[in-house]
Amino acid sequence: MRVYDLIYKKRQGEVLEREEIRFLIDGYTDGSIPDYQIAAWAMAVFFQGMNDREIADLTMAMAASGDQIDLSPIRGFKVDKHSSGGVGDTTTLVLAPLVSAAGVPVAKLSGRGLGHTGGTIDKLESIPGFRTDLSLAEFIENVNQIGVAVAGQTADLTPADKKLYSLRDVTATVDSIPLIASSIMSKKIAGGADGIVLDVKTGDGAFMEKVEEAEKLARTMVEIGKHLERQTIAVITDMSQPLGYAIGNALEVKEAIATLQGRGPADLTELSLLLGANMLLLAGRTGSYQEGYDLLQELLETGAALEQFARLIRAQGGEAGIIDDVNKLPQARFNYPVTAGEEGYISAIRTRELGLQSVEIGGGRARKDDVIDPAVGFVLEKKVGDRVRPGDTLLVIHANTEDIGGIKERVRKAFLITPEKPEMNPLIHKTIR
Amino acid sequence: MRVYDLIYKKRQGEVLEREEIRFLIDGYTDGSIPDYQIAAWAMAVFFQGMNDREIADLTMAMAASGDQIDLSPIRGFKVDKHSSGGVGDTTTLVLAPLVSAAGVPVAKLSGRGLGHTGGTIDKLESIPGFRTDLSLAEFIENVNQIGVAVAGQTADLTPADKKLYSLRDVTATVDSIPLIASSIMSKKIAGGADGIVLDVKTGDGAFMEKVEEAEKLARTMVEIGKHLERQTIAVITDMSQPLGYAIGNALEVKEAIATLQGRGPADLTELSLLLGANMLLLAGRTGSYQEGYDLLQELLETGAALEQFARLIRAQGGEAGIIDDVNKLPQARFNYPVTAGEEGYISAIRTRELGLQSVEIGGGRARKDDVIDPAVGFVLEKKVGDRVRPGDTLLVIHANTEDIGGIKERVRKAFLITPEKPEMNPLIHKTIR
Repeated sequence: MRVYDLIYKKRQGEVLEREEIRFLIDGYTDGSIPDYQIAAWAMAVFFQGMNDREIADLTMAMAASGDQIDLSPIRGFKVDKHSSGGVGDTTTLVLAPLVSAAGVPVAKLSGRGLGHTGGTIDKLESIPGFRTDLSLAEFIENVNQIGVAVAGQTADLTPADKKLYSLRDVTATVDSIPLIASSIMSKKIAGGADGIVLDVKTGDGAFMEKVEEAEKLARTMVEIGKHLERQTIAVITDMSQPLGYAIGNALEVKEAIATLQGRGPADLTELSLLLGANMLLLAGRTGSYQEGYDLLQELLETGAALEQFARLIRAQGGEAGIIDDVNKLPQARFNYPVTAGEEGYISAIRTRELGLQSVEIGGGRARKDDVIDPAVGFVLEKKVGDRVRPGDTLLVIHANTEDIGGIKERVRKAFLITPEKPEMNPLIHKTIR
Repeated sequence: MRVYDLIYKKRQGEVLEREEIRFLIDGYTDGSIPDYQIAAWAMAVFFQGMNDREIADLTMAMAASGDQIDLSPIRGFKVDKHSSGGVGDTTTLVLAPLVSAAGVPVAKLSGRGLGHTGGTIDKLESIPGFRTDLSLAEFIENVNQIGVAVAGQTADLTPADKKLYSLRDVTATVDSIPLIASSIMSKKIAGGADGIVLDVKTGDGAFMEKVEEAEKLARTMVEIGKHLERQTIAVITDMSQPLGYAIGNALEVKEAIATLQGRGPADLTELSLLLGANMLLLAGRTGSYQEGYDLLQELLETGAALEQFARLIRAQGGEAGIIDDVNKLPQARFNYPVTAGEEGYISAIRTRELGLQSVEIGGGRARKDDVIDPAVGFVLEKKVGDRVRPGDTLLVIHANTEDIGGIKERVRKAFLITPEKPEMNPLIHKTIR
């Protein structure tokens, strides 16, 4: 087999065989196929696409390129949830205790934040003492003991995907649906999931800005799931403004606690129930979506979900007292309100810009090895559709520096104020099974 | 300027500015832009194409990437000729003396053969003593003295093109017309030509197998010439069978001598007159194509062109006696006739295959540093349209080894014999000005 022939074949719009895709990915992983050939191939894929079978084969080849986690020692059907990345997306912190409280094991491997999007591991680490570096044995033991564990990835999962993603990032081949879909699904499959619920975000803060593109991506991933016998449900949700009110690690933990107490932001609560109900359905815990939704709502109301969060924190060495007293979480020294300069309605919030500004004050990472400050971030007071008058607070900046430079002004400009009340995007665009 | 943005721009089908193209080519030449980004860009060019202005800018950027030869010390209008590569293409050996005998200076830099196509420098070096490694000063001096010089390239011409070509060769991005056209034209421009006559070959032995593709390439190169103010004429010619009868270095010199004596193969003679007449026209030596054609025919008939060949050989240290006695050229020890096995008409000759088999017996190079045997090669006795009976000689193999393995059989199979007389391709498909 010659790499040249495979690039040529894809360039001509032909379909690659399973062994051919495997040959490319294995060779790229072990370094025998150079970057420049894979760059040309990725660009050919951008133009010619791949059929569902090819995408499934690419997913499996990448999943098989490194360690694969065996979750079979965990009793029950393991459902993983993936979000395509957002700003202020606290759903995993809510879902892990909530779904496990309903009796479905949650064995969640999460990542750290990079660029304008945050990461669950960073958020949990803002809880004093919380350990995310569990060994695989501890991780499995915890799930079997209390039903839930959330840990960082220590295993060498999907090295082919990591290498390919870095290459795509510098060769303008990131936004190719076959490549995005296989990248996401390969990680879930290597992570050992039996079933997968996908939250595909769309809007300004999201990777797929347009709903149609998000739907295409969602359908592609559901098809991969079918080919690889992993039941998959995808939900397309709006990220044209931040989810909830908090952006920042400890601030989001605080918001998750409020949500688990049944008094969280409506959008975060609704999305958590939606994703959670689909997870219960996939796991066979409930017979219908509605049944799951009602059950989860009950678990919020009775406090069972919150109790389960306390169990999760204790099991991983964290200070569970934060649940009764959120002031035990790291707190920023300075609060700077950002106020509206004009009258009207918030018609849009530049979500990606808010994410980038939260990196700027130290709440996220511009580069992989940046150190983050868990206390800092933003708390919105107004969201899209709200009416404001000059002087009304739009958002409060939580910072640990006296000088926050131009951030205040840039944050103010992220709120678009118009005289007319805007049309509102629905939070949930579509569910694809 | 970021390379990423330029790849993205081309991928989206947008037009790159002159400075952007320059930035890519300069960065690639000096190594600051890596192979993988240029590979992705080249694949994007394959799909999205380039407009004439972009192709001209790419041509100039590559021409400017290394040495540029200044032919201004040579009096008169310097016309270069380029052939897109063929098998048994002896035209340069005929044209250099022929056109210079008509009073138009010929300052010809040529290359060596690689793969199934031969190279003029190798052919000339089969003449005992002939030196092709002239210094630039000698080269110019010779043209001013006797009107002609043919030398190998010693200067570092178009390093960007060399690097880009090697990359395209392994990333399935060779057959892109903007990239082929700029590659050819950049070398001619760096070589210092005032005007350019292009022989774009089509058919089995050629790079562009289809006439339509050859025409597209020809038109693109003529457009580059217009943009860069180098008068350019392109002729699309047939290479569905070898040109003339000889394939092999000394064998082709012998054939060139016969042609310069006015008794060469009809196709080689016709093509030489056609290309030569266009060169005279470009140089302003003649007022019309026909006038040039008639003049050149006369120079063949009177022996003036042959005399000029003798001058060229002497000026570069070669044994001019070969003109009166071609047996002074290297000769192979063994002749193996290959005969027809059936009755019928030669309907096609697999030209590329014959080129590859001539490499096999030592007449060409599979790799750049292979040593070639100037004496070996093939002499065809039958060409397309000829009638044959079993036992008739199709071709004679000239070899220096007693065992030529399976070559005889493979050469036989390169001749397709059918019961009906085939339709003949015209030698000249089209001239584009």
